Amino acid sequence: MASQPLFTTLPPTIEWRDGDLLLLDQTRLPHEIVVENVADVKAVWRAIRELRVRGAPAIGVAAAYGLCIAMRESTALSVAQYRAELEGHANWLETARPTAVNLSWGVRRMLRHARDTDAKDAATLHEALVEEAQRIHKEDRTLCEGIGEHGMPLVREGCGVLTHCNAGALATTGIGTATAPIYAAHRAGIAFKVYADETRPLLQGARLTAFELQQAGVDVTLIMDSAAASIMSQGLVDLVIVGTDRVAANGDFANKIGTLGLAIAANYYGIPFYVACPSSTLDLQTASGSRIEIEERDAHEVTHLAGRRIAPDAMQARNPAFDVTPHALVSGFITERGIVRAPFERSLRTLFAAEGNAA
Amino acid sequence: MASQPLFTTLPPTIEWRDGDLLLLDQTRLPHEIVVENVADVKAVWRAIRELRVRGAPAIGVAAAYGLCIAMRESTALSVAQYRAELEGHANWLETARPTAVNLSWGVRRMLRHARDTDAKDAATLHEALVEEAQRIHKEDRTLCEGIGEHGMPLVREGCGVLTHCNAGALATTGIGTATAPIYAAHRAGIAFKVYADETRPLLQGARLTAFELQQAGVDVTLIMDSAAASIMSQGLVDLVIVGTDRVAANGDFANKIGTLGLAIAANYYGIPFYVACPSSTLDLQTASGSRIEIEERDAHEVTHLAGRRIAPDAMQARNPAFDVTPHALVSGFITERGIVRAPFERSLRTLFAAEGNAA
Repeated sequence: MASQPLFTTLPPTIEWRDGDLLLLDQTRLPHEIVVENVADVKAVWRAIRELRVRGAPAIGVAAAYGLCIAMRESTALSVAQYRAELEGHANWLETARPTAVNLSWGVRRMLRHARDTDAKDAATLHEALVEEAQRIHKEDRTLCEGIGEHGMPLVREGCGVLTHCNAGALATTGIGTATAPIYAAHRAGIAFKVYADETRPLLQGARLTAFELQQAGVDVTLIMDSAAASIMSQGLVDLVIVGTDRVAANGDFANKIGTLGLAIAANYYGIPFYVACPSSTLDLQTASGSRIEIEERDAHEVTHLAGRRIAPDAMQARNPAFDVTPHALVSGFITERGIVRAPFERSLRTLFAAEGNAA
Repeated sequence: MASQPLFTTLPPTIEWRDGDLLLLDQTRLPHEIVVENVADVKAVWRAIRELRVRGAPAIGVAAAYGLCIAMRESTALSVAQYRAELEGHANWLETARPTAVNLSWGVRRMLRHARDTDAKDAATLHEALVEEAQRIHKEDRTLCEGIGEHGMPLVREGCGVLTHCNAGALATTGIGTATAPIYAAHRAGIAFKVYADETRPLLQGARLTAFELQQAGVDVTLIMDSAAASIMSQGLVDLVIVGTDRVAANGDFANKIGTLGLAIAANYYGIPFYVACPSSTLDLQTASGSRIEIEERDAHEVTHLAGRRIAPDAMQARNPAFDVTPHALVSGFITERGIVRAPFERSLRTLFAAEGNAA
């Protein structure tokens, strides 16, 4: 747990320093390393909206600290006034990315804490809220470490691990989710190779995953999304680990577009396919993947790249941001409490109950 | 056969006009339509090398005409001198793209014709060579039509067809190979949808296939390579047709990177997967796909896009240009003589024998 920092060359994704919120601007990576000192709640909203901070766990932490920033000038108010103002900021902050479950989760948890804390004045209440945000922050790091600990035995000496998109350190405030077993194994001195899919359209694999693994000294090779099956066919991949945005009650899960094709190819070649899954992404209210709504993003992301048009004028395009992988293709979910295996309907429900997380 | 032109908005891929060779510059598409009047054999070499003319069939035709351009100032030579000079140009022209089978094929066929033609002078011999090039050109168009005729019944009213890379009209001088059944069905008034994979790294799907289908009035939708499995999972794809660079004796075939993943996904969803295969791409000397050497291209194509760096500095990358799909995933090969089905070892050999093409 009390490990050395992952990167000596990179500032943390999110840092709380003497009442200031510092965010590593992920839209500038890998070309520029820019840390933004977030001035006010509007700036937090924009940073989330514009993906300067991204990744479900990191968004949850940023939102919690964001409310502290929003309220830092309001400690002279009455407790009732403070709570009312906080609620206004919270409702607005949630609109930054409507589909991000962790954003809402972080904001709601802060509101609950403000309601439940018996404070004599707003300054005391504010202090309690800062402590709650720090607790959320610490829990996120702990959760990543848990996934790393349970997933590490999958990463064997000399093996090849393939991952997609960025469910990495940059998406969290710790060692990532899909990358957690990778970093844990790397720390333990195990030698292995990672293949990172570039992940069109927004290239989080090329810009973020390849970058953070490289910075941490992991042996990482960038490939195109379309090369994954070929790399597998050559026997270079022994293990696939991806992240997830939402896991349904039966184990079907949503993740960045391209995950489904990877899972099918891994299944064809008999390669174990694991999903790193913090318990916060379990959604037992959703029975199966067919009920997961898939965000269709602007066709512009497909017809343009790095600001340049790559397709003909007036070309129609489809741009589903996520896909849904059926549970039959999943070897297991790597959670902070252990690896969950089929039958998922039962094993996920048991894990969920154990978490005591009923909402 | 004697059909209307496919495009009213696009010049032909290759045109021979009054002794001039006109090439549509494919590197400028879709943004600019530029026709190059190829001045001399050096310019032909460069046009092939720099992919201004591309696609195995089109390269064969361009090479044949290219030798006519090379020799057009040499008609005052003796027949022997003419043949010697032709051979020199031929050997050099073949070096433009060493792996393109059709380049060598076109050049060798022209040399053979020069050797076998009994001409009284170089001018007569030159005329015979121009006629041979025109014959090669016409055969290419006929071959595309044959693939179109045999593949058309696969394209049913209301269906969805997915294709990868560009084995289209722009890769040939006719209606393409993988696109031939699509254009034939479109001409016959059948309504259907085409999904074109963008085809990283060089985006031939976005730049060329989506473009030419759009120009021909076909209902085409551009998708990212990584979205194909998701589009299939939604029931939108009833048929996959791809081209091929080489087919081994057992039916394993090489094609643009990403084809293997498509074939595996199509197999998973029970979607018919066809390969458009002019008999010239059959390589019976190669027993199986494991013997096909895969060109690994510059990592720069993966780390950069449209001239801009998208990956971190000093990032290692793999960039296999092709992959090999095992014959078990192939529903059939659509050839100019009919559709060839499993067992491919026998059916391909029979087709090959029928072609009388023993070398």
